[in-house]
Amino acid sequence: MSLSKVKALTFDVFGTVVDWRGSLIRQLEELGREKGLEVDWAVFADRWRGGYGPSMGLVRGGELPWTRIDDLHRMILDGLLVEFGIDCLNEEEKQDLNKVWHRLTPWPDSVEGLTRLKSGYVIATLSNGNVALLTNMAKYGGLPWDCILSAELMKHYKPDPESYLGAAYLLGLEPHEVMMAAAHKGDLRAAQEVGLRAAFVPRPGEWGPDREIDCTPESDFDVNATDFNDLAQKLGL
Amino acid sequence: MSLSKVKALTFDVFGTVVDWRGSLIRQLEELGREKGLEVDWAVFADRWRGGYGPSMGLVRGGELPWTRIDDLHRMILDGLLVEFGIDCLNEEEKQDLNKVWHRLTPWPDSVEGLTRLKSGYVIATLSNGNVALLTNMAKYGGLPWDCILSAELMKHYKPDPESYLGAAYLLGLEPHEVMMAAAHKGDLRAAQEVGLRAAFVPRPGEWGPDREIDCTPESDFDVNATDFNDLAQKLGL
Repeated sequence: MSLSKVKALTFDVFGTVVDWRGSLIRQLEELGREKGLEVDWAVFADRWRGGYGPSMGLVRGGELPWTRIDDLHRMILDGLLVEFGIDCLNEEEKQDLNKVWHRLTPWPDSVEGLTRLKSGYVIATLSNGNVALLTNMAKYGGLPWDCILSAELMKHYKPDPESYLGAAYLLGLEPHEVMMAAAHKGDLRAAQEVGLRAAFVPRPGEWGPDREIDCTPESDFDVNATDFNDLAQKLGL
Repeated sequence: MSLSKVKALTFDVFGTVVDWRGSLIRQLEELGREKGLEVDWAVFADRWRGGYGPSMGLVRGGELPWTRIDDLHRMILDGLLVEFGIDCLNEEEKQDLNKVWHRLTPWPDSVEGLTRLKSGYVIATLSNGNVALLTNMAKYGGLPWDCILSAELMKHYKPDPESYLGAAYLLGLEPHEVMMAAAHKGDLRAAQEVGLRAAFVPRPGEWGPDREIDCTPESDFDVNATDFNDLAQKLGL
């Protein structure tokens, strides 16, 4: 089936569109300076992100009822604050700290590339982040989404099939009219399994300089691109 | 409570942001010319819109299961095509005709006013129109929404309380942090009843020159504005 049927692009966000790790470390270091805390914030950031998969797993497996990412992030944060011995934050400060995830910086090509892609397609988020988080992040980073779609709307986290199929339904499209763009192969393969098209846009720096990431193009993805400008060019925009 | 707590504005769309009637008549007249049809398209447009409330009423009353507006519009259209003796359209043409609701023209102040309001608030739709319809309409008309919210996401049509409360929840806000903006007093009163703030922006031309519309400001609305630029000014933007 030709790519000419594709009418909308849905994007993974954490790692694919924004540099969550660099953004977290910068904001955490700033907090550390303000509060005089001596913490390895890169470790803290990685542990925070590391808690995300397992906590979503509890929701996906039915051990936790539906819980939005803001609340999962807070659960993980509360544990980390104890573990790292950080006891100087009041409730308001903790709430603000939890919102670092609403203030993530786009990769250098994201805004320009998305703007180009928007000229030819409906561009939407399709993230496990909740709607408020994604909306605030778009405003913070100037991301020009046509539509904010989230696993929250389907109450199924990616890679559950309902998340991809629900997004296509909300866009009024058939699955093959939607292309998922992501830096993570598992996300793309899950989307392909239920009929979406797939664009791989690896982000070698997602986990920092010391972690190796699988950036190898794959022939079964519809497009392999180096960034969003390259994706736009490969889609003829 | 002061308006300084308000962080997001949610907007009724049909009539408040876009001129559904003028847009429908223009597109229907064009179809009529193409197909050589002699129909009073203003009557057709009013009847199409007139079917909307009763058909949503069937959903709100539980007589119809959840049905999105695109599908309600199509049910009403199919009846009108029979009634007006229009039998020259194939299925693809009917589907395209039904999408006139995705191609509605903003009121002259809408894009500029919303752009100003966006500089100070999260601006989101809160319409009974479904997500695909609102997304396509925004792209068609250049409406700069931060977020597309729809009764479809709550599976409760306005003025059901769940629609307003669900929108506030998705935005991560308390009801009093959200202000509903609408040209229709009933919509605003329903929003106020569950704790949202209210901005009245009447649209005297919504139903054409011959229908009188209640445009009187009301002291119990938080803001009464003449258009979106006036609303922006009254909110200090």
